Amino acid sequence: MKHKYALKIQYLGTTFSGSQIQPAQRTIQSEIEHAINILTKENNKTVFSGRTDAGVHALSQIVHFDTEQEINKRKFVYSLNALLPDEISVKGFAKVDEFFHSQKSARYRWYRYIINNTSHKSILLRNISLHIPEKLNVQEMHSALSYLNGHHDFSSFKSSNTDNPATHCNILYSSCRNFSGIIYIDLIANRFLYNMVRTITGTLIEIGGCKYTAEHMADVLEAKNRKCAGPTADARGLTLMSVGYDERYNLKEIMNTEAINEQNVLCKAS
Amino acid sequence: MKHKYALKIQYLGTTFSGSQIQPAQRTIQSEIEHAINILTKENNKTVFSGRTDAGVHALSQIVHFDTEQEINKRKFVYSLNALLPDEISVKGFAKVDEFFHSQKSARYRWYRYIINNTSHKSILLRNISLHIPEKLNVQEMHSALSYLNGHHDFSSFKSSNTDNPATHCNILYSSCRNFSGIIYIDLIANRFLYNMVRTITGTLIEIGGCKYTAEHMADVLEAKNRKCAGPTADARGLTLMSVGYDERYNLKEIMNTEAINEQNVLCKAS
Repeated sequence: MKHKYALKIQYLGTTFSGSQIQPAQRTIQSEIEHAINILTKENNKTVFSGRTDAGVHALSQIVHFDTEQEINKRKFVYSLNALLPDEISVKGFAKVDEFFHSQKSARYRWYRYIINNTSHKSILLRNISLHIPEKLNVQEMHSALSYLNGHHDFSSFKSSNTDNPATHCNILYSSCRNFSGIIYIDLIANRFLYNMVRTITGTLIEIGGCKYTAEHMADVLEAKNRKCAGPTADARGLTLMSVGYDERYNLKEIMNTEAINEQNVLCKAS
Repeated sequence: MKHKYALKIQYLGTTFSGSQIQPAQRTIQSEIEHAINILTKENNKTVFSGRTDAGVHALSQIVHFDTEQEINKRKFVYSLNALLPDEISVKGFAKVDEFFHSQKSARYRWYRYIINNTSHKSILLRNISLHIPEKLNVQEMHSALSYLNGHHDFSSFKSSNTDNPATHCNILYSSCRNFSGIIYIDLIANRFLYNMVRTITGTLIEIGGCKYTAEHMADVLEAKNRKCAGPTADARGLTLMSVGYDERYNLKEIMNTEAINEQNVLCKAS
């Protein structure tokens, strides 16, 4: 009989060639599958909620896999963490029903881009933020984001490096906030196009730096042309914060306090 | 004419042999002096507010040096940061009067020890915290700390590896708090003995793990014997948060809260 399990994992993407398995590359997925296969002595394949690029981090990425075995949660998570490199941590584990699919069942993804907007580099945030010493206008950036809320064709923010023809997304929440010089750009959407958050961020940085006003974002969106948007912001500043699923999947045990925080964000948005 | 300047620096101690200069070792002080000397073309010596051990971090360490030159602050800090390795950042710079001394003028030091007390390792806090998966009793640890407040002979918490005969310190503030499984142990004192915070932490961990009750801390203090205290906790969890000086030194411009905010960003994220 097949059993299906979901893992919540956290990783610092700095030293990996992205999440997705690729021949001869050190990826998050290859490390995870390697560790799982040592423990199950099977040839398990994992499915991620979505891929993250080289250098991008995750605080709560959801991964599922099938196995012939009934797994002891506590022991399994402990052993996985012992086998995984320092930059990857398993933070939760749950048995799920056969209908659950980490990617297809996901209702939303929450990404955060962090900018260190102080004069000096930060040794603590150096791997997870982009340092921009020139003062950015955060209020203008926040206003610019409001044009993106809701259902739109996001072709302008899609890397040309992809041939997926679906270009519509629904942005459920967006904000740009400043906490003593550390800027958080938060975006929650049902789905994201390839490089979309980083391209939106690149456009926001141009607006924050007074190259354009907030309304420029509306023009870029309308143009449906990648050339109108700003540059793709560096991967290091981007983190997948969490992935949301229907309550019926009973993922509570891997959705702990972060989920409450997510809920707050969603509540504020509505 | 001599000019005196104070620097506020931040560092991740993980890959250094402590702060203090030593022959053939990579230390914070050797990196700082090397960078300053490139810029001033002099042979400047620096004085730190206090030494930190190998593996210990600082969010706001204060360093002073004398030079023959009048220094342009903005340009100097920018150049220093470009010369320093990624793990060290200059966060502030001020001209001070001839009476200022980073060590002797200091009125207090604030240290924080961070314990990740969740079941799983944290990729964000891995270099700046100690991971203890077994649940600690934080309330009992906080109570134990209260016995240390005020003027005492701290011989029990002094590494035997030192011959400084002065063993009295004044603890101005102490607390042990839990934020969603991340434990902060904060201690502010006029001075600290060698390894004192790490030995207090080792004793607290024994109390938090129910080996002893809170009153044990009073007995250990009373004994004036290092053998009565717990083991010296791992250096990686310890951070020098800040150093306090008299207002008359007018160090306001290097006394802000940025650094503490950065640490909060990491702790909240993990």
